[in-house]
Amino acid sequence: MIYVVAKNYIREEKVNDFMTLAKKLVEDTNSKDAGCIRYQLYQDINNPTVFTFIEEWESMELLNRHMEADHFKEIVPQLAAMSEKPEDVNILQQI
Amino acid sequence: MIYVVAKNYIREEKVNDFMTLAKKLVEDTNSKDAGCIRYQLYQDINNPTVFTFIEEWESMELLNRHMEADHFKEIVPQLAAMSEKPEDVNILQQI
Repeated sequence: MIYVVAKNYIREEKVNDFMTLAKKLVEDTNSKDAGCIRYQLYQDINNPTVFTFIEEWESMELLNRHMEADHFKEIVPQLAAMSEKPEDVNILQQI
Repeated sequence: MIYVVAKNYIREEKVNDFMTLAKKLVEDTNSKDAGCIRYQLYQDINNPTVFTFIEEWESMELLNRHMEADHFKEIVPQLAAMSEKPEDVNILQQI
């Protein structure tokens, strides 16, 4: 199993656009990507411009395939363009 | 439901001690704390000094009660003492 925590720092004026587009990514990923056990979006309750994806994948290979999918390649660059600073991504294994 | 992502940056020489103590915290929390739905520890596959707790709680109130528990008050300061820099903690709601 592979886990991903991806923290996004979004410009204030882009928060609503980000939420709309990021939810589309969540929907497409959950419905289309093999090996996706969990892929959810969360908002920081103390800072509404901070959003975190928490993901769980059957394998690194299937996570990589997700990152090659059309919906990923189409949406992720747009999310990045709404960001204050680069995403913090950690790829994790449970211990 | 309340989610917590807590990222820890551990001094290299303290990684083993951290893992032992953090696993004790995971065990105590899962077995003792009401409202704990998920409380797990993960290690970054690209940087073995970075550890992330991913937590899921029934409510903010029960998360706060966890942070008042003996095992939390006893162990968390010791984990902090092993750290390179302060923990990154985000308290989150799913959107």
